[in-house]
Amino acid sequence: MRISQFPLYTLKEVPADAEIVSHQLMLRAGMIRKLTSGMYTWLPIGLRVLRKVENIIREEMDHAGALELLMPSVQPAELWQESKRWDQYGPELLRFKDRHERSFCYGPTHEEVITDLVRREIRSYKQLPINFYQIQTKFRDEIRPRFGIMRAREFIMKDAYSFHENHACLQETYAKMHQAYTNIFTRLGLQFRAVEADTGSIGGNASHEFHVLADSGEDAIAFSDQSDYAANVELAPVHFQPANVKQELKPIEKVATPKQKTIEEISQKLKVESAHCIKILLVKATDGEVIALAIRGDHELNPVKAEKIESIQSPLTFANDEEINSVTGCSAGFIGPINLNCRIIADHAAVNVQNFVCGANEIGFHFINANWERDVPTPEHFDLRKIQPGDPSPDGNGTIQVRRGIEVGHIFQLGDKYSRELNANVLDQDGREKILTMGCYGIGVTRVVAATIEQNYDDHGIAWPLPLAPFQVSLIPINLDKSSAVAEYCEELYLQLQHLGIEVLFDDRNARPGMMFADHELIGIPHRVVISDRGLKAGTVEYKSRSNDEVLHISLVKIKDYLRSAIISTE
Amino acid sequence: MRISQFPLYTLKEVPADAEIVSHQLMLRAGMIRKLTSGMYTWLPIGLRVLRKVENIIREEMDHAGALELLMPSVQPAELWQESKRWDQYGPELLRFKDRHERSFCYGPTHEEVITDLVRREIRSYKQLPINFYQIQTKFRDEIRPRFGIMRAREFIMKDAYSFHENHACLQETYAKMHQAYTNIFTRLGLQFRAVEADTGSIGGNASHEFHVLADSGEDAIAFSDQSDYAANVELAPVHFQPANVKQELKPIEKVATPKQKTIEEISQKLKVESAHCIKILLVKATDGEVIALAIRGDHELNPVKAEKIESIQSPLTFANDEEINSVTGCSAGFIGPINLNCRIIADHAAVNVQNFVCGANEIGFHFINANWERDVPTPEHFDLRKIQPGDPSPDGNGTIQVRRGIEVGHIFQLGDKYSRELNANVLDQDGREKILTMGCYGIGVTRVVAATIEQNYDDHGIAWPLPLAPFQVSLIPINLDKSSAVAEYCEELYLQLQHLGIEVLFDDRNARPGMMFADHELIGIPHRVVISDRGLKAGTVEYKSRSNDEVLHISLVKIKDYLRSAIISTE
Repeated sequence: MRISQFPLYTLKEVPADAEIVSHQLMLRAGMIRKLTSGMYTWLPIGLRVLRKVENIIREEMDHAGALELLMPSVQPAELWQESKRWDQYGPELLRFKDRHERSFCYGPTHEEVITDLVRREIRSYKQLPINFYQIQTKFRDEIRPRFGIMRAREFIMKDAYSFHENHACLQETYAKMHQAYTNIFTRLGLQFRAVEADTGSIGGNASHEFHVLADSGEDAIAFSDQSDYAANVELAPVHFQPANVKQELKPIEKVATPKQKTIEEISQKLKVESAHCIKILLVKATDGEVIALAIRGDHELNPVKAEKIESIQSPLTFANDEEINSVTGCSAGFIGPINLNCRIIADHAAVNVQNFVCGANEIGFHFINANWERDVPTPEHFDLRKIQPGDPSPDGNGTIQVRRGIEVGHIFQLGDKYSRELNANVLDQDGREKILTMGCYGIGVTRVVAATIEQNYDDHGIAWPLPLAPFQVSLIPINLDKSSAVAEYCEELYLQLQHLGIEVLFDDRNARPGMMFADHELIGIPHRVVISDRGLKAGTVEYKSRSNDEVLHISLVKIKDYLRSAIISTE
Repeated sequence: MRISQFPLYTLKEVPADAEIVSHQLMLRAGMIRKLTSGMYTWLPIGLRVLRKVENIIREEMDHAGALELLMPSVQPAELWQESKRWDQYGPELLRFKDRHERSFCYGPTHEEVITDLVRREIRSYKQLPINFYQIQTKFRDEIRPRFGIMRAREFIMKDAYSFHENHACLQETYAKMHQAYTNIFTRLGLQFRAVEADTGSIGGNASHEFHVLADSGEDAIAFSDQSDYAANVELAPVHFQPANVKQELKPIEKVATPKQKTIEEISQKLKVESAHCIKILLVKATDGEVIALAIRGDHELNPVKAEKIESIQSPLTFANDEEINSVTGCSAGFIGPINLNCRIIADHAAVNVQNFVCGANEIGFHFINANWERDVPTPEHFDLRKIQPGDPSPDGNGTIQVRRGIEVGHIFQLGDKYSRELNANVLDQDGREKILTMGCYGIGVTRVVAATIEQNYDDHGIAWPLPLAPFQVSLIPINLDKSSAVAEYCEELYLQLQHLGIEVLFDDRNARPGMMFADHELIGIPHRVVISDRGLKAGTVEYKSRSNDEVLHISLVKIKDYLRSAIISTE
């Protein structure tokens, strides 16, 4: 496209109300404009990116055997009443009445509608498995829409729903969808992880979230540096590993620590590593008593794990000052496991520490060289802590890294939750009615665009992975109005590159070079070619990749092939 | 696609509540399913057709320089209050409140949203003209949704909006859009007409409706057989053409017509053509008196035209029996222009008739050989009648034909209706604020699919024009399970045709031939290839086009080229 026919709506200023980088850059690059809270118009250059995401998703879903259809966005209340979600769903569900006073909602998801379709159309096990998907506008009336399209009210989702005769068949399709999602996010050029998700609240069926790794992500993801293992930090288990080095037990000693209460202060004062300290956290037990949780000084309690232990109150409740005093005889900052008047539960790692530092249950004092068994019975131990970078991966392969992630996809083994409520049956081989088994698979299509930016930007703007770039090549002439040689060569190269199927944004605005460079960097075009009289005289064009600062001078005869191999070969 | 992986949901029975052919066939062919009144799910085979329509529209809009964007479907009430349509629009506008009690609607059209965008982004005449479009789901809460997707509540529209510094510039874009629409409907393979529309109610700016010609259409369209001229029958003018043959005036004579009241009865009784009769219709004048409208016996009054005459009441009101008696001294059926006690206004064609038959204003009698001027003064005459097949085209080229049409597109010179209300200005060359001039251009994308079927079907089902067909070729094996030769050849041909980019639906269901033929004819695939052992032994396949009944035996070596030239060359 020529910019004269495809105007840019770039902004120099960072918009005041845009909190995160992707929101700022999407506004600045002229990709979106806000209509009202949580609702955005996709301008032409933004829509080009969105369509590329959609197309990659569509190709991989088709490839995985899913069938595209399109359901209405407006859904009758009756179906949601059948599934009982009309009452369960909160004010995020946008509800309204039509002119005849019948109740409807703007669909935030389509389990009910697809299950209704399938119970009418699918009568026999022979028609199974089947997997339908759509790419569609949804609405979720977020109480506080924010971060631009990252958490918008109106957004585009790819939602798929598969139906099966039994769980084994569901698992096959689930595995196919897991692979399709892996293919999609790989083709999109993203760093991502498929994360085991917490499915406690929905019956323990398998579920994976796909997270794009980016510092602004809302979730912390623990993943192996050598395998596919990834999980939310809250959920990643830390297995017990027996200590393999036995140290010589030193004599226990009480030392004065008048002002030192935190692990950091203690380890500095006593010149021991925090890994050689034991901290005690006092929480409420289900029987109303107090339980002491013993954690290694460099580790962090994971409340989700603690709450899963039967004798511990859920939600996790810490003991108050009065209870602390009655159990320890002192106050927080000097608590230790020795001479403690309550039950102790330790984290696995805590029981491996020898010659450790701990509070003496006496204000102003700590023990050094304390040891389990000799000084206090070794407590029962569980997985209580958050996994940390450097921990071994729970799957036994590699070491854990932790990064923040943005959830862009979620796959889910639903089982019969909806098919049972909506009475969606098929006849099995023996002619008996059987409730369908169901899976669902979502991708936040619009959110993928924002997440990609969160992972791919620098001070100058967006740096699109090639598959999502609105254009592949920027063609920038210097002095277009003054040099007929520049104009002619640009026209020729523009047509030739288009002929090769390369998407070129030809900056025919005749603007200042600095302004053109800034615009093209802001909107994130991966390849830039600059044509100048000086270059033409030397028989070269100037080439620069968006991903580094090196400027190459490439001969006129080679630039076409150079771009072709940079673009076509990587597709 | 193989049907084993792309199941058909065809129905044998005609669904009870489907009134029109397209609705019946879309249900029977498994293209759509009803969710609830006026809301439909597009099943995979239907969605394939819909996407083809969308893509052709998109290509031609892009080609015409329009820029695709995507606005939210949900719109804030504030903008509609600014344009004053929040109060003007009826209950078709689906209104609702969000969780914060702010009012919104599900957009049936986007003039307000685009004008809001443009007033923020476009500041200078240098940024004009600009033409934005989107392809998007809309909602119009029809009081009585019917005819399937032809008049659904949720539907897909292509809506474009252009902005200009002045009316001359609008007209240029309008002409481009007229051409783009012509290209679109031509590429879709449709018989259509661009019809001058009635724009009386919106200020007299130009407007054209694009109608697909089909017997089930709601509008009657008059069009020339030799030019582009087309208009709604209600609106097509009939120009005055002076009589070029003067007849010899015969003596007037009163004849008894005791039981003959209608033109048909009179012309039979007196053995004269209805074109030689004059009928009188008595209507109310603006001053409360009665006016007689004189129309040729074979012509039909056009109320829209009569209402435009200043002295005639609008809406058109016929005289009651009492008023008829006071003006004529008789009753309906025997009224004529001679000795009539009121003002007469004639249709152009009526004043050309000589030696005519007319009522004698005396019960049971008519005149024959009556003549204007000799027997009654020639009345003033206007264009009062509906245009008829056989009339000369108003543009002077060709003869009028009349067919029914389905409106699928509408282009419109809006002027400053919205830009004025929303205060959408730009700075002109002299730095002065100037209100934008606006055009809008709609296509009912989902409706195009139904209209195409209304124009292309037979007793066996849909007969898609090639550009819209869900698949281009049906590949039907006979005894797939029993003949390995058939199976092998089908696989080979299937892959080869796919390699050529031909869209093949391979019926690998191993069903009865009659059932397969019926399904493929119902869903309307343009080309059918049947593979059988007998054919293979003879070195041929059986070929049949959906558009005729001829079965060809084409040699195995030629079938690929045959299909390629039938499909690729016509694209």
